[in-house]
Amino acid sequence: MSVANLPQSLRITLVGSGQVATHLGLAFAQAGHQVVGVYSRQLAHAIVLANQLPPAIATNNLDFRNQPACDIYLVSVSDAAVASVIAEAQFPLGSYVVHTSGSLPVTVLARPDLELRTGVFYPIQTFSRNQPVNLATTPIALEAAEPALTTLLQQLAASISQQVIFMAGPDRKKLHLAAVFACNFTNHLLGISREILLKNNLEPGLLNPLIRATLEKSFSADPFTVQTGPAMRGDANILQEHLQMLAPEPLYQQVYGVLSESIQAKK
Amino acid sequence: MSVANLPQSLRITLVGSGQVATHLGLAFAQAGHQVVGVYSRQLAHAIVLANQLPPAIATNNLDFRNQPACDIYLVSVSDAAVASVIAEAQFPLGSYVVHTSGSLPVTVLARPDLELRTGVFYPIQTFSRNQPVNLATTPIALEAAEPALTTLLQQLAASISQQVIFMAGPDRKKLHLAAVFACNFTNHLLGISREILLKNNLEPGLLNPLIRATLEKSFSADPFTVQTGPAMRGDANILQEHLQMLAPEPLYQQVYGVLSESIQAKK
Repeated sequence: MSVANLPQSLRITLVGSGQVATHLGLAFAQAGHQVVGVYSRQLAHAIVLANQLPPAIATNNLDFRNQPACDIYLVSVSDAAVASVIAEAQFPLGSYVVHTSGSLPVTVLARPDLELRTGVFYPIQTFSRNQPVNLATTPIALEAAEPALTTLLQQLAASISQQVIFMAGPDRKKLHLAAVFACNFTNHLLGISREILLKNNLEPGLLNPLIRATLEKSFSADPFTVQTGPAMRGDANILQEHLQMLAPEPLYQQVYGVLSESIQAKK
Repeated sequence: MSVANLPQSLRITLVGSGQVATHLGLAFAQAGHQVVGVYSRQLAHAIVLANQLPPAIATNNLDFRNQPACDIYLVSVSDAAVASVIAEAQFPLGSYVVHTSGSLPVTVLARPDLELRTGVFYPIQTFSRNQPVNLATTPIALEAAEPALTTLLQQLAASISQQVIFMAGPDRKKLHLAAVFACNFTNHLLGISREILLKNNLEPGLLNPLIRATLEKSFSADPFTVQTGPAMRGDANILQEHLQMLAPEPLYQQVYGVLSESIQAKK
């Protein structure tokens, strides 16, 4: 496929049917592309997603040579499963195959016997069941070696997002590590906070303005420069008291201890 | 002071001139109250705030008996300093004195010799220099034993915030502990995330949509039920790789390790 004859509407096969595949598949369809196939190891899962993306065909067969032809295979299974899926799959010779992982190198897709043209389509976002995501404002980090695939991914990404960037594998890994701190870990802390409130019959919404202010501040200032709280103040009495209050939850004590130490080390 | 003759405009002395005193003092003045005095151990600091609140008088003298009369003394110094400030201070007999701490019991203000009427005025918010705060949407947690002080605090709080609640000391402590997780710790993680991006010449704004989505999700769902990421998926390869990438920062490795462990324990 050359740039000149790149179709406006692409045909896509989703290899995977989890949250990332679901949100991207729906966004692709809404942008006028056609999802022609959905693979899942569990056929029932593939059917659920394919039914949302007519006329997509569900399959649990990794031999794609006899399935509907498409412009691009989007591999969106868990990081740990990508290598085995690729090892087992049969694609038409020379297919365009990309994964959606923040962590995996593009080389995990290598299948020299199939002459695959490979790349990465990584939406910098968190996807959960039944939680709408604004993909238009979600940056999409792309990687591709071949110019034709570069153009294809650029077109596909730009059709669903306003912010498309190219990023080499090592940078994407660093970005993903940063995202784990900014998203996975903060989310867990928000869960601990909510649990403490609920266990004590306190309305969880009471902290929403504080949470909102904390995150809004992080957009306008270096968080290290606006750190507040007992660890920052070096208030040993309060730190000790909080650790005692957490005694029934030794892991939360550890979380509290190491984060307080890290805050004090940054003073 | 009885409920009947409660003035619409209160006269307030700020004992302390830090971020909480500053933000509250400005909000009180805007709500039509009069800040008559600002105390700081360092007179220069008291002057800076008093100058923003004319005709407030700055002082570094804890004997308030000869200073401008007021309806309420708001003690807003660091938690660790409250007890010594109260021990040293001289207030007119029977004064209304409240602190703004989430952690300290109201009893830290006890001065039976002065017959103080004591309470708590705790804004559930994070305050940093030069960072505007929307106090109108900030819940204010009050505590007071005496009905007249209850009424006074209710009036003062309602004049600057739409959400005023009464909360006993032990509940306020639990709320404060939850706030440390939801605010202080998340802020530190956002700082680590930003540092990783900047050190690798990646645009920190790339993660803003992700951070925003994480926060918005926490308002509509239990964060534990929408947890994503390598720890949640049990992806040992990625966890190991991330720990290796963090090798130059042993404390960040510890933060990563204990939070990943805590996420996995909640699965």
